[in-house]
Amino acid sequence: MSLADKVLQGDIRASARLMRLLDDEVEEGRIELKKLYQHTGKSYIIGITGPPGAGKSTLVDQLIYAFRKEGKKVGVIAVDPSSPFTGGAILGDRIRMQRHSSDPEVFIRSLASRGHLGGLTASTEEICLVMDAMGKDIIILETVGVGQDEVEVVDLAHTSILVTVPGLGDDVQAIKAGVMEIGNIFVVNKADREGADRAFREIVAMLDMISWEGRFRPPVLKVQAHNGVGIDELVEKIYSHKKFLEERGLFYKFFGNRAKKMFEKIVINELGRRLKERILSDQRWADWEVSLEKRSIDPYTLAFKVLEEMVTITCK
Amino acid sequence: MSLADKVLQGDIRASARLMRLLDDEVEEGRIELKKLYQHTGKSYIIGITGPPGAGKSTLVDQLIYAFRKEGKKVGVIAVDPSSPFTGGAILGDRIRMQRHSSDPEVFIRSLASRGHLGGLTASTEEICLVMDAMGKDIIILETVGVGQDEVEVVDLAHTSILVTVPGLGDDVQAIKAGVMEIGNIFVVNKADREGADRAFREIVAMLDMISWEGRFRPPVLKVQAHNGVGIDELVEKIYSHKKFLEERGLFYKFFGNRAKKMFEKIVINELGRRLKERILSDQRWADWEVSLEKRSIDPYTLAFKVLEEMVTITCK
Repeated sequence: MSLADKVLQGDIRASARLMRLLDDEVEEGRIELKKLYQHTGKSYIIGITGPPGAGKSTLVDQLIYAFRKEGKKVGVIAVDPSSPFTGGAILGDRIRMQRHSSDPEVFIRSLASRGHLGGLTASTEEICLVMDAMGKDIIILETVGVGQDEVEVVDLAHTSILVTVPGLGDDVQAIKAGVMEIGNIFVVNKADREGADRAFREIVAMLDMISWEGRFRPPVLKVQAHNGVGIDELVEKIYSHKKFLEERGLFYKFFGNRAKKMFEKIVINELGRRLKERILSDQRWADWEVSLEKRSIDPYTLAFKVLEEMVTITCK
Repeated sequence: MSLADKVLQGDIRASARLMRLLDDEVEEGRIELKKLYQHTGKSYIIGITGPPGAGKSTLVDQLIYAFRKEGKKVGVIAVDPSSPFTGGAILGDRIRMQRHSSDPEVFIRSLASRGHLGGLTASTEEICLVMDAMGKDIIILETVGVGQDEVEVVDLAHTSILVTVPGLGDDVQAIKAGVMEIGNIFVVNKADREGADRAFREIVAMLDMISWEGRFRPPVLKVQAHNGVGIDELVEKIYSHKKFLEERGLFYKFFGNRAKKMFEKIVINELGRRLKERILSDQRWADWEVSLEKRSIDPYTLAFKVLEEMVTITCK
């Protein structure tokens, strides 16, 4: 039985193995992924993002618990910042989710944001496909931070939950405004803290400034993840958004769009890789390198010169 | 007189105009940038990064003040998260730097992290080049967040300063561990707060675990940016790191490496753009699109098929 077949049967060890192969960019991983691809496109993907200290892991832990109570199979991908030098994943407070580690229907995977060719989004997407093939009903993506990369990861989710906490200062206001339109549900976590009502009102006020006609108006919830307050309501709102997407045929359109974006990324990455190989093995590269270092040619001019001389886009 | 010439004379309006042209990806911007390129490679670039609420803007404000006292010309690029939908830059607490707005030798530019072709790093790098050509002695890059994108922005700096504050929770510990090796100087800001000594000791302990032989061992500083405590020492440490780089010839090597990376990015982006144009105008694209949507072909297989049929890497 192939690795792909085992994954399709929900085999945990085989799935973990495939994820490692994909992580290490081993050819075999790609081959197995292709085999199981047509069986994917079934999981519901939930993204959770917000600044450090917002209590995202605790929230994820509560959501796992809630979905498991309903008998749903759950996958979690925790995207961690990591050193570009050591490349190591930081496990950090993943420990909070450990109470699920003995549950065979919960699969948790940490993903370091080290320099993959296709970037963090590509890696996350591949892991998503494996979990989808495993038969996970729900996949939760947790990301720290609010950069472009995180925005892209959120873009992989059907429902995006933006988490904040009271009293994180002005920066956070800026972030809230900035990522306002990517959230489908807003959570003010640690709502027992001072300033929770203010944070709640500010988010509502910001949402009021946007026209939601024909779109899903994001609900704002006060939650206390550490003691489970507000989790049931959060789950309910996730299902409301899911229903909204399904009624408009957006659930499958979502997967179609993802496939197109993925195609585009693979083409560009592979093309870049091939051309780089070609340039580095060209005898003129040593001269070009010196010119760049001495600033006697600018990178734009050289780039277009090289493209002119080396690449032809033909058509069959 | 060309726009590039005006920028080289430090003309503020011309520089702002060039930055806008680059931002809008207008061809004219690229032409002017090429003209001034050979005059760049002189500024000292300082990166400041850390989680939201760490007081980075206040710290930047104090650094501007300190460098201005020495008569240095200063440029600041504040990288803001922004909505991928509206594309608007968030000005947020940039207001704190406004006391420098009447100083003609201080140029502050906010940069939104919206979806540029070359990504945030490419945009930041172009703005850096313009400020360099304007004659800025110091360029400060301020980024919010800790994602891969931020790591890349930090990579643009000669000296990277990582800022944290006491009491941000466990997530922050993970981040500290993750980005430990990219910092040249560590700052515990708001050091009058409870937990500052603990945060300080933890960073020192983490640094102790890394071998710094032949490298610059990052100093750790307790700072209170809001009332200026520790700023002089921070400036001193920045100069120590600068001296370290200069003595080893790393100051210019840095610019050489940047040029090579920039070249590579331009090549790959341009190539991707051309191929995408080619694919979308191909009569087979409609069929391919349907196959992707129906999942009857996986994006990997289609990507390699298209590469096979459309691209030839030749050599002159």
